[in-house]
Amino acid sequence: MAGKKVLIVYAHQEPRSLNGSLKDVAVAELSQQGCAVTVSDLYAMNFEPRATGRDITGTLSNPSFFNYSVETHEAYKKRSLSSDIVEEQKKLQEADLVIFQFPLYWFSVPAVLKGWMDRVLCQGFAFDFPGSYDDGLLKGKLAILSLTTAGTASMYSKTGVNGDFRYFLWPLQHGTLHFCGFKVLAPQISFGAEMASEEERKRMVASWAQRLKTLWEEEPIHCSPPWYFGQ
Amino acid sequence: MAGKKVLIVYAHQEPRSLNGSLKDVAVAELSQQGCAVTVSDLYAMNFEPRATGRDITGTLSNPSFFNYSVETHEAYKKRSLSSDIVEEQKKLQEADLVIFQFPLYWFSVPAVLKGWMDRVLCQGFAFDFPGSYDDGLLKGKLAILSLTTAGTASMYSKTGVNGDFRYFLWPLQHGTLHFCGFKVLAPQISFGAEMASEEERKRMVASWAQRLKTLWEEEPIHCSPPWYFGQ
Repeated sequence: MAGKKVLIVYAHQEPRSLNGSLKDVAVAELSQQGCAVTVSDLYAMNFEPRATGRDITGTLSNPSFFNYSVETHEAYKKRSLSSDIVEEQKKLQEADLVIFQFPLYWFSVPAVLKGWMDRVLCQGFAFDFPGSYDDGLLKGKLAILSLTTAGTASMYSKTGVNGDFRYFLWPLQHGTLHFCGFKVLAPQISFGAEMASEEERKRMVASWAQRLKTLWEEEPIHCSPPWYFGQ
Repeated sequence: MAGKKVLIVYAHQEPRSLNGSLKDVAVAELSQQGCAVTVSDLYAMNFEPRATGRDITGTLSNPSFFNYSVETHEAYKKRSLSSDIVEEQKKLQEADLVIFQFPLYWFSVPAVLKGWMDRVLCQGFAFDFPGSYDDGLLKGKLAILSLTTAGTASMYSKTGVNGDFRYFLWPLQHGTLHFCGFKVLAPQISFGAEMASEEERKRMVASWAQRLKTLWEEEPIHCSPPWYFGQ
């Protein structure tokens, strides 16, 4: 879709990894479609994951009792958040679609990406009260998780040791993305990445490239408990 | 239980916060029982959350293609993990009970605590293949999540906007703690902490202190899908 803006938030240490290839092929395919693609390469940026007082420049609203969510909400309104947060918020504000590309760490995102969520998605910018879930401040945007797992698809099934893969998506897709107003596309999961042959990894990359050709036509998932925990 | 060793992994920036008080009362109560209590105060330690090559001292097993899980597994066996990881692994190895004390950030742990999980719980130390879930390498230990939420208990019910609180516990309790062999005690959740009065917060702290008196007698939860997603 020519003219669309895409942000890829990418969390892998090795450029030649499967995650790196999945990111690269997304940049290539979407650029070819005429999209403007921006990548936040979190490890390369040495992105700060810790939520601390350093995220607020200037004086705190209550220096004697630090409350991170209150202080960052205030700082957002006063435009006194630290520059690395502001930079990411600008990229996010402009994006029509956000792709999160990461390997699954402990049924979730790696800490560097968790830190991006903790720090960038602050109150006033990504949500407010009112202003959450379907009314989240980032509504109108699409998001998709593209992740790799060490475990196989059967391990991530209802009867597998890890339970259904949809179970671990709840905090990320519902609790974070939906909460901020995103419409969530079905995840792209490259299962069993650790043990896959070179040939299989190439197929995973090709399959993602193929899907991206028609991604803009996809209907978002219905992001509520039945999608995750239904029979 | 006199003689027992307890590790509290604590993730809050403000010592006078509700999380700080919950941590303090646990130290006091457990010490009074005769337990040896150690606290890892992650923000105060400026604990590193990012999983990078800096976690391996000396030469990498494959310097031309960085694979974090392979390299840290190798480094664990060769005793060449970075000292901050080794230090936490020692504390964990000695602990009979681990308490995680944190505010819920995006239906999960704050990034600084996610980084502790990503980096400390490496293959060879916390799990192996075989050596996961009921055979996880940390078996014989107890773990409990003690967390605070901004949302109320009714918001975290099956019919509430955030869905049942058990849904978001799955990646942490099952995918992480159970995977490493821990027996998991029912979580201690202090709901609605942000809007609570001083009086209500005091009751939350007192209620935790009271529970700790008989915590050692509790039966762990049956950590499998029905506990989380059953009717």
